[in-house]
Amino acid sequence: MTGEIDPYCPYFTAAMETLSKRWAGPVLRALVPGPMRFNAVASAIPSLTDSTLSQRLKEFESAGLIDRVVYSEHPVRVEYALTDKGRALGEVLMQLNGWALEWITLPDETASN
Amino acid sequence: MTGEIDPYCPYFTAAMETLSKRWAGPVLRALVPGPMRFNAVASAIPSLTDSTLSQRLKEFESAGLIDRVVYSEHPVRVEYALTDKGRALGEVLMQLNGWALEWITLPDETASN
Repeated sequence: MTGEIDPYCPYFTAAMETLSKRWAGPVLRALVPGPMRFNAVASAIPSLTDSTLSQRLKEFESAGLIDRVVYSEHPVRVEYALTDKGRALGEVLMQLNGWALEWITLPDETASN
Repeated sequence: MTGEIDPYCPYFTAAMETLSKRWAGPVLRALVPGPMRFNAVASAIPSLTDSTLSQRLKEFESAGLIDRVVYSEHPVRVEYALTDKGRALGEVLMQLNGWALEWITLPDETASN
């Protein structure tokens, strides 16, 4: 894994720009287990505000990472679901999660996992 | 990959906090091919300022992701190298790079890769 890899890749940098936004990673990761409603994502992630979640979801939708799925029920039901592109990214995020579980020690290890 | 995964993991969120800092991803990724000197990293990544690079390197060192290796030559040579923890993260970053190469279209596709 040495020598042939260029130290810089603009595609990687572009990916990191999307993931670097506030709560971007946790929001995308929340959708890995399956489609979720807005309130379910909002309540799953501590400290995430509705306005930040709303912004991230709009950006992810325009980046083709998630679909906003509207079920014509009464009342109407809206869920956010990863696209193929989003699911592929979700797999990488779960690898990052595996790394985090192996290597990261939380400041307060009594925090729930 | 559904059902058994919790939508939230504090370890993942902690990992994303480190990676979300300005230029954090590209700086760590630059060290994947091998140890590099400060100026080599600085010139490999467009728009990265010396002060941002310096901050990230200090944070990565205190997070145990990189080692600052001093060679007692004349003049002294200093290189930054991934630790085991950093190399493990580097492998995930290269998976993210693979995802980016497959799925991301740059605004200006004439940009060099």
